[in-house]
Amino acid sequence: MRFKFSILALLLEVSIIVLFGIFVEYNEHSASETLYPVFQDVHVMIFVGFGFLMTFLKKYGFSSVGINMLIAALGLQWGTLIQGFLHRKGEKIHVDIKSMINADFSTAAALISFGAVLGKTSPLQMLILTVVEVQLFSKNCFLFITNATDVGASMTIHAFGAYFGLAVTLVLYRPGLKNKHENEESTYHSDIFAMIGTLFLWLFWPSFNSAIASEPIYQLKAIVNTYYSLAACTVVTFALSSLVDQRGKFSMVLIQNATLAGGVAVGTCADMPIHPFVAMCIGSMAGIISVLGFHFLTPFLASKLNIQDTCGVHNLHGLPGILGGIAGIVVTAIKDEARQGDRFSPGMQAAALGSTLGIALVGGALTGGILKLPFLGQASDQNCFDDSVYWEVPEEEKLQEIHANNYDGPSRFEATM
Amino acid sequence: MRFKFSILALLLEVSIIVLFGIFVEYNEHSASETLYPVFQDVHVMIFVGFGFLMTFLKKYGFSSVGINMLIAALGLQWGTLIQGFLHRKGEKIHVDIKSMINADFSTAAALISFGAVLGKTSPLQMLILTVVEVQLFSKNCFLFITNATDVGASMTIHAFGAYFGLAVTLVLYRPGLKNKHENEESTYHSDIFAMIGTLFLWLFWPSFNSAIASEPIYQLKAIVNTYYSLAACTVVTFALSSLVDQRGKFSMVLIQNATLAGGVAVGTCADMPIHPFVAMCIGSMAGIISVLGFHFLTPFLASKLNIQDTCGVHNLHGLPGILGGIAGIVVTAIKDEARQGDRFSPGMQAAALGSTLGIALVGGALTGGILKLPFLGQASDQNCFDDSVYWEVPEEEKLQEIHANNYDGPSRFEATM
Amino acid sequence: MRFKFSILALLLEVSIIVLFGIFVEYNEHSASETLYPVFQDVHVMIFVGFGFLMTFLKKYGFSSVGINMLIAALGLQWGTLIQGFLHRKGEKIHVDIKSMINADFSTAAALISFGAVLGKTSPLQMLILTVVEVQLFSKNCFLFITNATDVGASMTIHAFGAYFGLAVTLVLYRPGLKNKHENEESTYHSDIFAMIGTLFLWLFWPSFNSAIASEPIYQLKAIVNTYYSLAACTVVTFALSSLVDQRGKFSMVLIQNATLAGGVAVGTCADMPIHPFVAMCIGSMAGIISVLGFHFLTPFLASKLNIQDTCGVHNLHGLPGILGGIAGIVVTAIKDEARQGDRFSPGMQAAALGSTLGIALVGGALTGGILKLPFLGQASDQNCFDDSVYWEVPEEEKLQEIHANNYDGPSRFEATM
Repeated sequence: MRFKFSILALLLEVSIIVLFGIFVEYNEHSASETLYPVFQDVHVMIFVGFGFLMTFLKKYGFSSVGINMLIAALGLQWGTLIQGFLHRKGEKIHVDIKSMINADFSTAAALISFGAVLGKTSPLQMLILTVVEVQLFSKNCFLFITNATDVGASMTIHAFGAYFGLAVTLVLYRPGLKNKHENEESTYHSDIFAMIGTLFLWLFWPSFNSAIASEPIYQLKAIVNTYYSLAACTVVTFALSSLVDQRGKFSMVLIQNATLAGGVAVGTCADMPIHPFVAMCIGSMAGIISVLGFHFLTPFLASKLNIQDTCGVHNLHGLPGILGGIAGIVVTAIKDEARQGDRFSPGMQAAALGSTLGIALVGGALTGGILKLPFLGQASDQNCFDDSVYWEVPEEEKLQEIHANNYDGPSRFEATM
Repeated sequence: MRFKFSILALLLEVSIIVLFGIFVEYNEHSASETLYPVFQDVHVMIFVGFGFLMTFLKKYGFSSVGINMLIAALGLQWGTLIQGFLHRKGEKIHVDIKSMINADFSTAAALISFGAVLGKTSPLQMLILTVVEVQLFSKNCFLFITNATDVGASMTIHAFGAYFGLAVTLVLYRPGLKNKHENEESTYHSDIFAMIGTLFLWLFWPSFNSAIASEPIYQLKAIVNTYYSLAACTVVTFALSSLVDQRGKFSMVLIQNATLAGGVAVGTCADMPIHPFVAMCIGSMAGIISVLGFHFLTPFLASKLNIQDTCGVHNLHGLPGILGGIAGIVVTAIKDEARQGDRFSPGMQAAALGSTLGIALVGGALTGGILKLPFLGQASDQNCFDDSVYWEVPEEEKLQEIHANNYDGPSRFEATM
Repeated sequence: MRFKFSILALLLEVSIIVLFGIFVEYNEHSASETLYPVFQDVHVMIFVGFGFLMTFLKKYGFSSVGINMLIAALGLQWGTLIQGFLHRKGEKIHVDIKSMINADFSTAAALISFGAVLGKTSPLQMLILTVVEVQLFSKNCFLFITNATDVGASMTIHAFGAYFGLAVTLVLYRPGLKNKHENEESTYHSDIFAMIGTLFLWLFWPSFNSAIASEPIYQLKAIVNTYYSLAACTVVTFALSSLVDQRGKFSMVLIQNATLAGGVAVGTCADMPIHPFVAMCIGSMAGIISVLGFHFLTPFLASKLNIQDTCGVHNLHGLPGILGGIAGIVVTAIKDEARQGDRFSPGMQAAALGSTLGIALVGGALTGGILKLPFLGQASDQNCFDDSVYWEVPEEEKLQEIHANNYDGPSRFEATM
């Protein structure tokens, strides 16, 4: 079984290199050098931000940060090709800093979906998910978003990635995980590792929401709006985190995740002149929705609808993404916004939101169906949320485990890649 | 008791949003886009730098990085308003990248004071401290610094924040903590987490000291001077750390903190043509003062003067801040420096330093008095330096503790927010 | 014994400050401000990247990140002087952002060599190694590279630092470490700390390879080529990591290190129009070489050739550095590349590679001979890979150790600095 992952990964890499050889060229006339610092911020968000945010599980840190890196490294190459084929004028795909930002963006949706299925899928399954989702993401952007605006990608990345992932996890439903798995919890230090991810996402989110803004004046608005939206969201999240707990204690899950909802929700209209206080209202609402989602909705989805959402991406990306889409509809209805001659209408915004959700849910369900194929070697329920199935883990840890659980025999080593 | 924190936090946030709605506008004529990478460096220092620097305590990492985030998110909004009211021309407050840097700066003083009282105050108390200190900080900057120079804020942020915090912790003096608290120590990994904070502060300090320099030529000097000051300070700190230890061993407390003193001390005259070797002399002196402060002064202050300074902010920010202020006096006495028509005099520099210290000490003492009000629910001495009073902590940790200490009954859950 | 380290460090710092006072001036006509964000990326790589990459050992994290900081802080000052003396026109050395990038670069070779001897040398030895290696590195760059191209320093930094370090570790060979030392392993969390280093190196490598490119068009190529080389290298590394393991499991050592080989190998010809797909081929080859090196070569070097390479720098920097040098020879043979009037020839490239390796090996062997002098106080074999010899370590850790190993008496405290 160990060869399947390696062969598929090598096959994908060779194919990508061949396609790059035929189609990809430098953009010799690029004027995007000034975007390089912003690109680096986005780059840190994708690899450190998403990667460490998911390290909260006590035995799944290697996979969180490692498989995140794998998905992103594969996805950015694949995304370059797919987006290049959709957008190219002439025969060649021209790459520069701007196309690298878009390549990084195209991996974000897959990383969000990874959060929904975290701990329950094999690296082999994640390769397939990445290839399929990057493709659907890019096509959705191209088909439906050209007449709508979504500068910070609330709909196209966050809502898309979340609902795609939720559909996958629904199809991959595991009744055996209905009762909380013993590995599905954090430790004191794993929660602090996750805060590294949270903070780098939080800090660089203004770069994320402004990276593809068309002019400096819109970039500035996107930066300012995102900065204040996140700040308001954070204060509200702390307030509600204490409020919803019986003993008034803060919850690390909420501080790690709901503080970021303000960045998601302000994304669609970040570059519009909505006034900073409206950005703060959107951020506050996002914080409220996200906290309530983690507290009430996630347990409900898991127990009643068989949707097991490991990282709670529905609350961080799904609901705030929809809120962002709705904010975009409202703002375009009130303000007469245009970019480069295109006027935005609330109808088109609503259509973009609807079709994004539709494509995500259908695409995710179909992808889940593919991932269910038996030869892709999912781990058994018992081996979920456990790095040692796919990683060599330091001896000490293994010994501790043997002491704690009694050694469960060689069976734990039979899991497949 | 759990509602007090939530209600105050929500009340503050709603008030801030209303004031933003009335007064805050985008600066449509901003020319500060080129400052964005520098802003992001400062932003990382505030949230990752200060946040992780304080994670060294074995059971207080959630609060260090989490409450740091809360203070900064609240403080930057509040600082925007306070600074905006002081500086606005016309009716509106105009925000852009430069005002965001200043908003981030205004939180730094409160975060330094947080370091002095770390482990001994409730989140509710920290909300109040933040609101008061950001206001006093901004007014001090406006009233006294307009005729003096302090580009890297050695006096206005570092000395101010440190002495404000020391005054607060003196008023909040806890005789029960006279003997070292069992939680007031680090673990191997908590010390490594703290190095994340140290390094991001150390690396981006040239951005901090040059961010508000008025022209590129001064920015370059501030960057170069800070870079070499910190490098010299670091070598000296390692040398002295070994020298002051009986067995010649390095101390993590010193490496985490005293290596940064060079950034503080060179701040006031960073943008002046002092020559790189003078910057290195200032950095070296700061390293010496800081190491000696940690080794001799902090124990003395705690035992004789009832000043319990958890993070040793006096040695990292207080003394080096004063050294920076004195360096500014000396340099302006020797060199005839001016910025935008204003000539700086050593008398004005000394007056700025003196009044900064005065306002910090008086303001801190009064704030300490407010924080002592009984309904703000300080933790008991026994519950100090312990996240589990204010945070849900992973089960494993709690179990370990129960094993180690014998379960101390439900009393530990009665602490208040 | 404790005074030797402190006295040497202070002596070096005082000498450097005196030399700075005599020779170093600001570059008042600098035009390198736009390089500041790129400088900061490189700066993060040197201190966070290299520092955390080496924290994987279970009991050597303080030294990894701490002594890394010491070496870099000393090396950047020393490198400023040495490079300045070699390159100055007129009497003064002029510093600006560009010279700071080169100063940071000059520390990288010493940090790579530190990886080879990690856990087996004293801080005092590392001071000497830094002073010698920064000097030899700078002279090698100046003498041999002025007629060859090596924009990303595959040869001059990576191969040089690796073979210098391998020669040192060969001379310092310890038969007592032939059998794996009990401390020479990772823990679960130390491996995650190391990923912080990996990711910041990986993310900012395009800045490293483009920082000293002479024109924006070459910078863009260096960025694009490095970005895709690293992405391809990462996918290949995951594939091979699983393939070479008997049970198909990923190895953290490989993911932490081999994923970076693509950045090393593409360095020499990063700024040339080699096409992105060629960059990806180079990256893929680097990944293959690096994985095979870790899997087969490192054990062989240790057991047969007495080369004990703690971090496997041969596989991350040595072999990929040579691959980069060879790629440079091939590309200059095929393409007629020139920069600022200088035409590059494959012969000169080969000569540069050869002399770099020669100087590194001879210089490293001589340095190893110096470091063997008995009064430099190497730790005993038993005390290798153990922070507690040079650092005050939290009580808890010491207690655990006493429990685990039985207390070995005061002897462990007799080690020297």
